Amino acid sequence: MRKELGRRAAAIVGLAVGLSLVAACPASARNPYHDIARRLLERGLADRGAFSILQKILAAGPRLTGSPQAEAAVAAAFRLLQDMGFDNVHLEPVEVVRWVRGPKEEARLLSGTGGTIALDVCALGGSVGTPAAGLKARVLEVRSFEELGRAGDLAGGRIIFFNRPWDHSLQETFAAYGPMAQQRSRGAVEAARAGGVAALVRSASTSEDDLPHTGLMHYENGTPAVPAAALSPKSADRLSAALKLDPDALLELVQGSRTEGTVLSSNVVADITGTEKPEEVILLGGHLDSWDLGTGAHDDGAGCSQAVEALRLIRSLGLKPKRTLRAVLFMDEEFGGTGGRAYARSERRASERHLAAVESDRGGFIPLGIGLGDSRTFPRLAKWEPVLRSAGLGWLRAGGGGVDIGPLAESGTVLGGLVPDSQRYFDVHHGALDVIGAVNARELELGAVALAALAYVLAQEGI
Amino acid sequence: MRKELGRRAAAIVGLAVGLSLVAACPASARNPYHDIARRLLERGLADRGAFSILQKILAAGPRLTGSPQAEAAVAAAFRLLQDMGFDNVHLEPVEVVRWVRGPKEEARLLSGTGGTIALDVCALGGSVGTPAAGLKARVLEVRSFEELGRAGDLAGGRIIFFNRPWDHSLQETFAAYGPMAQQRSRGAVEAARAGGVAALVRSASTSEDDLPHTGLMHYENGTPAVPAAALSPKSADRLSAALKLDPDALLELVQGSRTEGTVLSSNVVADITGTEKPEEVILLGGHLDSWDLGTGAHDDGAGCSQAVEALRLIRSLGLKPKRTLRAVLFMDEEFGGTGGRAYARSERRASERHLAAVESDRGGFIPLGIGLGDSRTFPRLAKWEPVLRSAGLGWLRAGGGGVDIGPLAESGTVLGGLVPDSQRYFDVHHGALDVIGAVNARELELGAVALAALAYVLAQEGI
Repeated sequence: MRKELGRRAAAIVGLAVGLSLVAACPASARNPYHDIARRLLERGLADRGAFSILQKILAAGPRLTGSPQAEAAVAAAFRLLQDMGFDNVHLEPVEVVRWVRGPKEEARLLSGTGGTIALDVCALGGSVGTPAAGLKARVLEVRSFEELGRAGDLAGGRIIFFNRPWDHSLQETFAAYGPMAQQRSRGAVEAARAGGVAALVRSASTSEDDLPHTGLMHYENGTPAVPAAALSPKSADRLSAALKLDPDALLELVQGSRTEGTVLSSNVVADITGTEKPEEVILLGGHLDSWDLGTGAHDDGAGCSQAVEALRLIRSLGLKPKRTLRAVLFMDEEFGGTGGRAYARSERRASERHLAAVESDRGGFIPLGIGLGDSRTFPRLAKWEPVLRSAGLGWLRAGGGGVDIGPLAESGTVLGGLVPDSQRYFDVHHGALDVIGAVNARELELGAVALAALAYVLAQEGI
Repeated sequence: MRKELGRRAAAIVGLAVGLSLVAACPASARNPYHDIARRLLERGLADRGAFSILQKILAAGPRLTGSPQAEAAVAAAFRLLQDMGFDNVHLEPVEVVRWVRGPKEEARLLSGTGGTIALDVCALGGSVGTPAAGLKARVLEVRSFEELGRAGDLAGGRIIFFNRPWDHSLQETFAAYGPMAQQRSRGAVEAARAGGVAALVRSASTSEDDLPHTGLMHYENGTPAVPAAALSPKSADRLSAALKLDPDALLELVQGSRTEGTVLSSNVVADITGTEKPEEVILLGGHLDSWDLGTGAHDDGAGCSQAVEALRLIRSLGLKPKRTLRAVLFMDEEFGGTGGRAYARSERRASERHLAAVESDRGGFIPLGIGLGDSRTFPRLAKWEPVLRSAGLGWLRAGGGGVDIGPLAESGTVLGGLVPDSQRYFDVHHGALDVIGAVNARELELGAVALAALAYVLAQEGI
């Protein structure tokens, strides 16, 4: 697109402004929060502070729950929040399980017709390893647990290859992700129940490339714990094609993953103490732990950086919230949600009342809206949508929540979540491409701005 | 973000669906176009055909107006549209100017204090070259034409360095682009009028990196034609810092660009002929020419691929539009808009009536809405917004248009434009990063789906 001088170009630029995502709202016509929202938006985009914060959070590298890097990130985040001058900066203990990926992760199909075919794999989080020399077995490919059930004795002694593909026809990628996550999470249990010796799972990814995507899997008592690994989408296609030519080919899998018991980790907390009702808290959160193939830039360094940046923005405008604004960087969202539960159950909560908790854990992409409250509470909150529009956001709707803040619901906290565009999230999610190069500083910042505007209005007005 | 089995996870996935960009609209409650829109959406996302078309359009490489690659792209697009089986596939002639970038583009500051500082530059489109040995002069840095005016005699014999920075505080990047494009377009004229010997312009880019971004510039009769080049944002910062230490440092600029006269090129046209009113046309368009530093994937291979994919989608559902649907790949949007004018003025138009023309020339990013019509016509069109929502789009508003379709306004055609998210566009626009790796297949497709839904409803219902 070209934009030149002259009347035509002036008209086009004018149109561009008119076609902006959000319409301008005259402040005088509404309430003083519109001016604040617009100032948050301008300041945020001018500074793009969320991206700088993200760089600092990612400096420790991947932050697998219980890993030394996760503890380094806790320490770095603590120092950062202190250096930024927030109130009440502290750590809260979380007991977490430490799972370790092995140094070697390999799979190959030893096909009689096609020679040896190397496959891109990674262990799923929580999986046991194979024997050191690997395991070798024939493969049974299925698209669903039902298909596995129908296979009967055929599954015995085999590696079960769960090859349900991503449903690209769904616009909402989280809806497509649901059954893919189920295949990943329950694959090992279903494989073992059927007599299989391992589970190989097609990665839950919108990108049909060579990169495997990890994620949590589960075992259950009374069912043998068999190794579980993810295949890249292209490797899954390659394996499927090779098995059609040679159904009896042996697949060799080696992975050295193991669980090493529990270690003590932390949630990281920082406040802007409320001037009038400091015991009432508006919480913004993300999770500090990440998967280990990338550096968890979108999942969920983004959410952490936005929570911190939202507080920074509010302070940078000289605003004094009546209620306490809090950023919480939760530990262990990915490996069990222990951080969210520990936070909700901490004795520190006894003297606090959490009015609202809003999570950002869907990536740092262009924010579309915020889901907040339920059918009971949302009617009282819907009036703030125009303020969010002034902050550059599209909408405020009922809905929202997440693993980290979910446990606060029991005490009556209104839950919410930032909703960014989801089209690109599962290209990078839990994979090697979830690195800072995949994050756009302006998109990330717009999420922080929206959270800041919402948090501030709730801190002033309550629920 | 983790998504696991169990009640909590099911609730989260449910929320995810509920929080989708657009609310589902029961077809029965509205009109049959909702079902069609949803089928277009599912089919489009399942096939992601726009990306395949884009790959074919980009195969010729950069498509600078008048270049052999642009002609190769015309030929490739013609064959593609024929192979796809569209009606009335043809070329329409456009006389264009051929400008050639030289083999050498270099700039360095010969600073007495800091040694030689290399600068990343590229010639602006339309610029003359320097003498083969380059030109060497002192530099005057300004932030605006007004500042240059105030400099008076200081500008004489100097290279004028226009260093107005991008205004990051504006959410709408096209609004920030306007004055940057003006600096680029008029820089050489203003420099020459002030007695300067060349114009060096800070790139119009949201990304503060080492890549210069090109774009069209102009000369005017009676003012000497001095060379004009763009500096990468980081080079502009480096130059500015160095000049503060050594204001008299000499800058050496070499560029071999030149204009080679006019050549004959083409717009590429393909139809689905209307079954009832074939002479009434709904046009979807993008421009086939591009800048030459990248391959014009977003600008505007994306728009071309979306126009073609929209027609493919409509046909793939077996739909028979009453009016003619047309895809036009315009030549020479970037170097003067000759393609759009030639199209509007062609004698072929005498037997046709263009009801609406909708352009996609803002990149292949996640589409937010469509601007269509003006205050007079939009009230009749607003009723189609719910259909576009069923096709996955957020909104339909008054506004829209563009360089290629603008000339059709004279004959009463309603103009429109696809409006994608603009946050990332100027990271790549007119620069080396505007390549297919910057395009997401799902985001691109969603634009094609929205255009298909709008074009079909207009083909059936008129304006």
